[in-house]
Amino acid sequence: MKYPKTLEQLIECFKLLPGIGEKNAERLSFALLNLEEDTLDIFSNSIKNIKKNIKKCVVCNNLTEDNDKCFICLDSNRNKEILCVVENTKNLILFEKAGVFNGYYHVLEGLISPIDGINPEDIKINQLINRIKNEKIKEVILALNPSIEGETTSLYILKMLEGLDVSVTKIAAGIPVGADMEYLDPITIAKAMEGRNKIS
Amino acid sequence: MKYPKTLEQLIECFKLLPGIGEKNAERLSFALLNLEEDTLDIFSNSIKNIKKNIKKCVVCNNLTEDNDKCFICLDSNRNKEILCVVENTKNLILFEKAGVFNGYYHVLEGLISPIDGINPEDIKINQLINRIKNEKIKEVILALNPSIEGETTSLYILKMLEGLDVSVTKIAAGIPVGADMEYLDPITIAKAMEGRNKIS
Repeated sequence: MKYPKTLEQLIECFKLLPGIGEKNAERLSFALLNLEEDTLDIFSNSIKNIKKNIKKCVVCNNLTEDNDKCFICLDSNRNKEILCVVENTKNLILFEKAGVFNGYYHVLEGLISPIDGINPEDIKINQLINRIKNEKIKEVILALNPSIEGETTSLYILKMLEGLDVSVTKIAAGIPVGADMEYLDPITIAKAMEGRNKIS
Repeated sequence: MKYPKTLEQLIECFKLLPGIGEKNAERLSFALLNLEEDTLDIFSNSIKNIKKNIKKCVVCNNLTEDNDKCFICLDSNRNKEILCVVENTKNLILFEKAGVFNGYYHVLEGLISPIDGINPEDIKINQLINRIKNEKIKEVILALNPSIEGETTSLYILKMLEGLDVSVTKIAAGIPVGADMEYLDPITIAKAMEGRNKIS
């Protein structure tokens, strides 16, 4: 009472992905049966090559494919004095899509989390400190998740930068645009209140 | 402000699958970056071969891989006189997993749905009628979804079988086991009432 071998194998593969259970894996696998051969070849090759083709930018740890440096580090028209510190490439792209930042980035590849055994030396903090010293950075923007791990990491970086001639800022916490305040947690409400701005 | 090429391509491929939007496609693609090379090869090959390796059983249209007949049609120990009519292979496997049926199946590959342009000749009804005649079937169990399309298809098959010496049954509609009746729709409640069984 099983599906054919290749189909079973495909279902098992889908189940390795986050949030994909048995039913969903079946649904996705059957959907693949309805795609064109050409599309399946592209899909198959992308998966085969994803790890081979993609590497980390030697400067900032962003993901890159054809060059040793990512498209941001290759762009010489950006502001060399501001460095935005993010947890991962996904968050970097979020800021790029928002289109409000014209400096360079540093991807930490994680956040400090002693409970998960992730210590400062397990993420790219030393590399960050060295960049700040060597590249004569004037402003470091800490753009990490407003979680315990994010706050811990921000505090640690702040401490490491003590005594250096660099301004450190942190992105604002507050009410997200379009949110219904009724559904927000008290900590967010408190942060929004603390971070209030004078408007007249 | 884009991901590397191979990653973008993979995200686009995931977005072709049902229920997978931009954010989810990104999440799944990043998850693949954390899998082992060997696993990626298996995943990649399953996708590449899914259409090439899998064909339809020449008897019942169930999916099969190594043989022209599926594992059920190859099993000679089942009851040859009962045929269970299902919409697709997924539903066939549901009944096999329930383990209460020992006859053979016929997979219709769809349901009649004039609104979607699916007419009786577009699904495997003629093949079903021929099987019922040639294989001397005594009971046909209609095990289709209790939707308008399922009911239409059941009625059509019933009509096609008029005059043949075959008993036609339909699986029971009613309250699903474990369900909270409060959340069920009135039609299900009505079906359960209509289909009530004498217990003493």
